[in-house]
Amino acid sequence: MGDNLVYKILKSHIVEGELKVGEPIGIKIDQTLTQDSTGTMAYLQLEAMGIDRVKTKRSVAFIDHNMLQQGFENADDHKFIQTVASKYGVHFSKPGNGICHQVFLERFARPSETLTGSDSHTPTAGGVGMLAMGAGGLDVAIAMGGGAYYISTPKVVKVNLTGKLSKMVASKDIILEVLRKLTVKGGVNKVFEYAGEGVKTLSVPERATITNMGAELGATTSIFPSDERTLEFFKAQGREEDWIEFKPDADAIYDEEVVINLDDLKPLTAKPHSPDNVVTVKKAGRIKVDQVFIGSCTNSSYEDLMKVSKILKGNKVNPNVSLVIGPGSRQVMEMMARNGALADIISSGARVLENSCGPCIGMGQAPGTNGISLRTVNRNFFGRSGTLSGQIYIVSPETAAVSALSGVLTDPTEIDVDLTIDMPKKFIIDDSMILAPAPTNAEVEVIRGPNIKPFPIGKELGSEVNGRVIIKVEDNITTDHIMPSNSKLLPFRSNIPYLAEFCFNTIDEEFPKRAKEFNGGFIVAGSNYGQGSSREHAALAPLYLGVKAVIAKSFARIHKANLINNGIIPIDFKNEEDYEGIELLDELEMEGIQNAIETGIVKIKNLTKATEFKAVIELTEKEIAVIKVGGRLNYVKANN
Amino acid sequence: MGDNLVYKILKSHIVEGELKVGEPIGIKIDQTLTQDSTGTMAYLQLEAMGIDRVKTKRSVAFIDHNMLQQGFENADDHKFIQTVASKYGVHFSKPGNGICHQVFLERFARPSETLTGSDSHTPTAGGVGMLAMGAGGLDVAIAMGGGAYYISTPKVVKVNLTGKLSKMVASKDIILEVLRKLTVKGGVNKVFEYAGEGVKTLSVPERATITNMGAELGATTSIFPSDERTLEFFKAQGREEDWIEFKPDADAIYDEEVVINLDDLKPLTAKPHSPDNVVTVKKAGRIKVDQVFIGSCTNSSYEDLMKVSKILKGNKVNPNVSLVIGPGSRQVMEMMARNGALADIISSGARVLENSCGPCIGMGQAPGTNGISLRTVNRNFFGRSGTLSGQIYIVSPETAAVSALSGVLTDPTEIDVDLTIDMPKKFIIDDSMILAPAPTNAEVEVIRGPNIKPFPIGKELGSEVNGRVIIKVEDNITTDHIMPSNSKLLPFRSNIPYLAEFCFNTIDEEFPKRAKEFNGGFIVAGSNYGQGSSREHAALAPLYLGVKAVIAKSFARIHKANLINNGIIPIDFKNEEDYEGIELLDELEMEGIQNAIETGIVKIKNLTKATEFKAVIELTEKEIAVIKVGGRLNYVKANN
Repeated sequence: MGDNLVYKILKSHIVEGELKVGEPIGIKIDQTLTQDSTGTMAYLQLEAMGIDRVKTKRSVAFIDHNMLQQGFENADDHKFIQTVASKYGVHFSKPGNGICHQVFLERFARPSETLTGSDSHTPTAGGVGMLAMGAGGLDVAIAMGGGAYYISTPKVVKVNLTGKLSKMVASKDIILEVLRKLTVKGGVNKVFEYAGEGVKTLSVPERATITNMGAELGATTSIFPSDERTLEFFKAQGREEDWIEFKPDADAIYDEEVVINLDDLKPLTAKPHSPDNVVTVKKAGRIKVDQVFIGSCTNSSYEDLMKVSKILKGNKVNPNVSLVIGPGSRQVMEMMARNGALADIISSGARVLENSCGPCIGMGQAPGTNGISLRTVNRNFFGRSGTLSGQIYIVSPETAAVSALSGVLTDPTEIDVDLTIDMPKKFIIDDSMILAPAPTNAEVEVIRGPNIKPFPIGKELGSEVNGRVIIKVEDNITTDHIMPSNSKLLPFRSNIPYLAEFCFNTIDEEFPKRAKEFNGGFIVAGSNYGQGSSREHAALAPLYLGVKAVIAKSFARIHKANLINNGIIPIDFKNEEDYEGIELLDELEMEGIQNAIETGIVKIKNLTKATEFKAVIELTEKEIAVIKVGGRLNYVKANN
Repeated sequence: MGDNLVYKILKSHIVEGELKVGEPIGIKIDQTLTQDSTGTMAYLQLEAMGIDRVKTKRSVAFIDHNMLQQGFENADDHKFIQTVASKYGVHFSKPGNGICHQVFLERFARPSETLTGSDSHTPTAGGVGMLAMGAGGLDVAIAMGGGAYYISTPKVVKVNLTGKLSKMVASKDIILEVLRKLTVKGGVNKVFEYAGEGVKTLSVPERATITNMGAELGATTSIFPSDERTLEFFKAQGREEDWIEFKPDADAIYDEEVVINLDDLKPLTAKPHSPDNVVTVKKAGRIKVDQVFIGSCTNSSYEDLMKVSKILKGNKVNPNVSLVIGPGSRQVMEMMARNGALADIISSGARVLENSCGPCIGMGQAPGTNGISLRTVNRNFFGRSGTLSGQIYIVSPETAAVSALSGVLTDPTEIDVDLTIDMPKKFIIDDSMILAPAPTNAEVEVIRGPNIKPFPIGKELGSEVNGRVIIKVEDNITTDHIMPSNSKLLPFRSNIPYLAEFCFNTIDEEFPKRAKEFNGGFIVAGSNYGQGSSREHAALAPLYLGVKAVIAKSFARIHKANLINNGIIPIDFKNEEDYEGIELLDELEMEGIQNAIETGIVKIKNLTKATEFKAVIELTEKEIAVIKVGGRLNYVKANN
């Protein structure tokens, strides 16, 4: 029986453990990426580890999140990352060069290699057959230092694409359909491997849209084969030598299979406030639209924006709509400035932003009160746009552009525009905004602005863990809930004491105060706790506030790893109904915790209610060791 | 004896008073403009006046300040302005269409007409022979309602330009030279009328750079004749019918004359933190540069940015520099996207922002700690960039672009680049982002977001005015000191209670608290108090905090008008040494104030120091009436 793509990569990269679904494995990481909002912390952690130079084939530091720069903090952090990257042997992509995932895809992604990135949309590079995984900053720092990256051996789900997309139906609609079928919890501990006849009908950017937004399934990652279409892409990028054919064995086996018939797909939209809240655009109805944003790492490629320019050309944006375009990279923007498409976009009345994440992460362009905003982004979580009452609908670029003209949510198949793009045989290749690191680390002085504050480090685990329940939350809590990342807070990602004051701010403003009053304690949560962004700050801020453990019905993958990395114990309810029996401020006691984390079963006494219940602590041996010493950094230092 | 341009316009527009230097006159206003940061308040005031439709030839509302949109406030305010403009008969320039002064110059400015704008750089339109004056929002609202605009009859200063600029020396260097000679106080109650052989060597955008930044002289405004060069500009804008020749009489007389020999000019820079702190670029030295910003209403025209693109073409921005470009209008951006120049700029490694004020007003791109930033803007006041330790140098686009490449402040005459621009005979004309108002006001519902709060209105003047000195400040205090306008505060321009919490924040954080503690009181200031932006908020926030009078060595023109408009008494020291005798928290008493404002002399007792001194209250009869009823809005309502 043959191997699928995922197993091929895992087999060639495994350094620890056994390839058996659910079993922990350590894999060697070929490349890493960071962006600036998680990167400052990742490089602080890299420094704390005491290594000389990174040991990966290539590591790249991008600046794409904090580009508004409302205070000195951002420019200082950019300079810190630029200098620390140079010192440790990391390439630095200057602000303005583009969104990390788009630029990485264009210039660095390679089939059959492994990548970890301190951003949950790192799977974008799966579009060319790379095993690309989002991770916490510390995990990326460890990978830079040559350490393995630990995951559970995932189930591999074959997503069998049959048929061919109809006109005006987009690859965005494919991933929205997968999300509709499987939900934001449907991908936990799975890798989605795309296969079938439909694959060759999709270009690399179309594939990357799918692997990018596969993150919303909670999946470990998503991957496409590397084929002739991939070769076209590499040729156009002047990187033919980076290409290899990479296909699953003919008799490859998969753990599960999903079939999507592209012929049947209609334009879809994910309604507020979850990427799996998917219906057809037609069914959602002709809602009046206030704003349209086309961009983000999901849909900002040359191909995406060329299609948009064809729809907009010769037309004018509706007077009541603000249409905002954010190109994915300097390459995309320069090419469209050269071929006239950018002029067509400007002529239509669109606003053109810098090449950055921008509105997708709430960095600007917050909609008005109760504003309806159509966006080609990957997430429409509550509050993420910067406007709590904002109503964000995720749509394809085609749906977005057509609706910007009509002023109402519009099914693009109603319109007849020829969207055939003459893809250039050769893109404009210019890596001058990617600075190579210094030859040795001796010659670089790392420049640290006053925004960079020491970060909290966990303490050794004692014999028991006690405290109050300082917050109780529902299902599907995102890292945007835990550690909001709006434009006012994003500049403080290297300043945990400040950030912690806003922990859980969108759902419970009193949380930081309460946490301090009770000297920390426990978070009690529903299922899929910590979905969304990879931000380690959703663990660091609770750690700073004294959170000792999170008891949840289930955890999102990256967040669970971040909790462990920071010495916070992730505990699963054994019986979900026990969740109901706990209230805010209940006092909990976990005796014999040292033993419990070994056995995997902990008895939790609720002193307030005079009850007790059993819960599960699912940790690998290494994770147990990590928790015992108070987190991964302590562990790495002790074992170096 | 013949008339100069200024008197020609004043004579044809005067509706009250006598044209005698220093005497108050009321003039009819042909056109008005507002931008969004002052516009929300101006339209609230227009509504409060109870008129039906604006009575000007044309009024235009622009959105160019609050374009980052970090919260719902901005989009709400944009929607408010869009709807209120439509209702009252005002044209609305959508966000993305460009900076008010650049767009107004392109599409609306007319020789020999009058313009007031709620922005201090309204004199930009003087570049085509318009008498264009910055004013407080209330004054603009009154002009929209058909009311006169009141100024002191200004002295007219002839600025005699001889010779011709050398290569790589810019019109920016002309106005910097004027500022070097005359200082930021040198223009009070003067209009600068440019004349001489040098005039015809300057294009309209070059002239507009000069009239724009004439605001930094504290001048009432600046003006150029309308000649053949002006006609070229109007033809290219498809507005030949808006053009007239407009020249001073051959024997025109002037009150003063300044001669600038263009042949002698070298590239200049205004060093931190004042636009008159001018030296040659050579003398300033080859300082290492962190950031370069090319844009703002001063230097963001097609001609400016085409020159920049020629310097950048084929070169790469220094690795340690962040070069940021902000085009002035959609017209500029589209033309450069069509002709390849924008692509050349992108290719050099520049970051391209939206068509907006952006970094000039601290809306983004704040430099890092102690960061050196070269900017083509008009103001480098302390703190305005968003970074208190930032060091802003004002330079020409040529100096900016050359320095962005070298990484150090560089005299552009060292470089040999052909900057000849083939100016297009016809610009791209597309006013589709300028929305015409509704035909009648009945059909428009004004949409008001929760950020729009009631604004404070002054109270009738009593028989005496008492209180403490709640702040004492130095010379040249700007409206940026009084009511900071960084990116965190700008979104709250329609919310005075919130803004007031940050009044004087950059120099005295305790001020709002102290003001509340003592129930308001007095501001004591040095000379040129209130220079800079036209923002009425620098009067409204003090009014909200209970400020009753400002005692200063002298006042900047627009700010003095704003104080009076809001019922705050502007008082001048008779003897400047009395300034020294007052300390913070001294208790002052002004008896018989009703009489004093009529006679113009007030006796001020310092109860704390047991001293007394005389001071001057220079008010016109109308202003006395305004102060008595507690401000202009009360006055207008009472007299309607």
